Amino acid sequence: MSPSRHVDVARLWRRHMEMAAIGALSRGGVNRPALSPLDADARRRLVGWGRALGLEPFQDTMGNLFLRRAGDEPGAAPVMTGSHLDTQPTGGKFDGTYGVLAGLEALEAMNEAGRRTRRPIVLVAWTNEEGARFQPGCAGSAAFAGHAPMDRLLAAVDRAGVSVDTALADVLASQPDLPVLPPGFPVHAYVEAHIEQGPRLENEGRTVGVVTGIQGARWFAVEVGGVEAHAGTTPMAVRRDALWGAVNMVRALRELMHDPTDVVRFNVGRFEVGPGSPNTVPGRVFFTIDFRHPDAATLVRLGDAVAAVCRREAEACGVTVAVTETSNTPPVDFDAGVVSRIAAAADRLGLPRLDMPSGAGHDARHLAALCPTGMIFVPCEKGISHNEAENATPDHLAAGTKVLADVLADLADG
Amino acid sequence: MSPSRHVDVARLWRRHMEMAAIGALSRGGVNRPALSPLDADARRRLVGWGRALGLEPFQDTMGNLFLRRAGDEPGAAPVMTGSHLDTQPTGGKFDGTYGVLAGLEALEAMNEAGRRTRRPIVLVAWTNEEGARFQPGCAGSAAFAGHAPMDRLLAAVDRAGVSVDTALADVLASQPDLPVLPPGFPVHAYVEAHIEQGPRLENEGRTVGVVTGIQGARWFAVEVGGVEAHAGTTPMAVRRDALWGAVNMVRALRELMHDPTDVVRFNVGRFEVGPGSPNTVPGRVFFTIDFRHPDAATLVRLGDAVAAVCRREAEACGVTVAVTETSNTPPVDFDAGVVSRIAAAADRLGLPRLDMPSGAGHDARHLAALCPTGMIFVPCEKGISHNEAENATPDHLAAGTKVLADVLADLADG
Repeated sequence: MSPSRHVDVARLWRRHMEMAAIGALSRGGVNRPALSPLDADARRRLVGWGRALGLEPFQDTMGNLFLRRAGDEPGAAPVMTGSHLDTQPTGGKFDGTYGVLAGLEALEAMNEAGRRTRRPIVLVAWTNEEGARFQPGCAGSAAFAGHAPMDRLLAAVDRAGVSVDTALADVLASQPDLPVLPPGFPVHAYVEAHIEQGPRLENEGRTVGVVTGIQGARWFAVEVGGVEAHAGTTPMAVRRDALWGAVNMVRALRELMHDPTDVVRFNVGRFEVGPGSPNTVPGRVFFTIDFRHPDAATLVRLGDAVAAVCRREAEACGVTVAVTETSNTPPVDFDAGVVSRIAAAADRLGLPRLDMPSGAGHDARHLAALCPTGMIFVPCEKGISHNEAENATPDHLAAGTKVLADVLADLADG
Repeated sequence: MSPSRHVDVARLWRRHMEMAAIGALSRGGVNRPALSPLDADARRRLVGWGRALGLEPFQDTMGNLFLRRAGDEPGAAPVMTGSHLDTQPTGGKFDGTYGVLAGLEALEAMNEAGRRTRRPIVLVAWTNEEGARFQPGCAGSAAFAGHAPMDRLLAAVDRAGVSVDTALADVLASQPDLPVLPPGFPVHAYVEAHIEQGPRLENEGRTVGVVTGIQGARWFAVEVGGVEAHAGTTPMAVRRDALWGAVNMVRALRELMHDPTDVVRFNVGRFEVGPGSPNTVPGRVFFTIDFRHPDAATLVRLGDAVAAVCRREAEACGVTVAVTETSNTPPVDFDAGVVSRIAAAADRLGLPRLDMPSGAGHDARHLAALCPTGMIFVPCEKGISHNEAENATPDHLAAGTKVLADVLADLADG
């Protein structure tokens, strides 16, 4: 009766390739912006597949798309699984899509196994996880969890000035026969499958990542101010070189963030220098800091030291600095019961696993506040994601789906 | 009979203010692009002033504008002085203009002193020194010295696609009564007055800079290549972070270039990071190096070490690097005789002087290959130049002009 035995590696892979054709790019990737006509196409495709399995589709006013497999106790809170169908502008075939198609495959495997469950199981495709077209991302799951006001989410506009509200109306209208509910309903448990988007599973030769939580992140913006000067005439001793100040800040911050266990994540991703002329001493640098850690206390300790480190280096270089914290997302610990069920399922299937926090944010972050939640990672090639080169093997995708199928069936009887 | 006694501080200042009105900007600066209608206005103004002093104007086919004061021996090679009338897009009132107006004032002072000279003295306004609208700069003096082919200089176009050739035709046509000669004629000696464009005279409380030469410059372009990666998921140990590589290169290059005597000039002025997303590890950095020194051997020793230092840091950071030398301008030593005449004139006038190399390039670089050449610097406020805030005092401008007047009269009898 174990549904994992009915997971079909070829069918799962074929659906990935069919979905990847919707918004396909020339170098193997996908551009399927949230709430675009391509997103609507992908949703219709999913609904078609789901209906063929007997799933009942419905939507909510944030555009989240649900497909319900009936349980023996129709009034019981459902178990939920899924992810998202929107992509980065030069995204890959698996980020998000895998979690949706793994859920679909798990339900099909249950059908084939003749596995009934006490609770319904709901497959979900969340609206706008990526945040690439409209900010913020994870908008659908945030609305579902009540973590962000609907009016603010609906008012967000893309670069062309189109609002979520307008784009969403077109998407909802493209499947007018689906019921549309207000966001949010009771959920018994949530499990999301996803590619790792990092190299740990591949490097350690493991097939399944048992995700223990999502690390916290603190983002900072740093403005360094110097004095523009002629590079040929101005003695080094009197310069107030904003680039030199910023270089020393980056070095000192790397030292602050140094971690022999390699759990700290620290990145300076934007770094802009003005006026940007070869023979002018830079008068201005703007840079960003993305600092993450799974442990709340470490996030506080190291994050709170950022501004002081920058000020110390600024003083030593004779420049000014202003440090602004632009976001602070606390870490999430997933439910110990769900985590241990995932680990046990992987062990029963003989799949080598790694217990690990998620480095990236996911819709599961919002669900974790509503119900016992967990995630299942599978390896992706060289850890590359948010890139057309994103890749994963059919066997790895199937392995994660097997774990998902068994865990969902298990939870839906709880 | 010393012409310096007739230098008129108020007249010199008034002419600066009148010239600064041609292309005046709102914050006190000047935008007078080379070979623009504003440049033509400035040239007409200069010719008017020169004619009132009995100077004879003529031009050459590169647009260099000359005003000749007759000597007692009309066939003798003239002494020449001057600078340029074009400005940076947000330039100041004094860069270039001072050298032209100081020359004019020196000739007027000679007239008033009744000082005749054996040789003619020619005042020059060189075409396109700044190189801001058309590249390269110092085009007029380069053409005069035969250092650049005329056809290449005339073919250069600005951002709007207008060629030097076209713009020059309009400028020459605006004063159709002036003779136009091919560039170049024998010159006995050349002396150029200029604001320092650096802070040394002001910091050391000196009034006159006796310029010993123009330092050499080597420019490099550095391309650092890493691998883009997700900043939340990718362990620090496996990152190939192009920004981290570049930061270490800048630090190591500053160490290489460290000079307790503060003669080395080193600048990283452009520094561009891609893809420039807060949560993506940078995959690419481009930066420029502007390295200058008055000593040829030091330019070779330190400049030749740049690529190896970058490669060493690249290897340590797991990134790639490509270093290209984009220009190499050797240092120029000014004529010892001219330099000592300038120093002696300053001493006779009781003006505190500093013997110093020029950090910036000037038209005098090209003249130094043709004839004994020197330059006279005067202080500018806080060393600021190429900036609307550029400033100098009437007394300092007059002091340099006094030295110029006496040196020109002296040289023109030689």
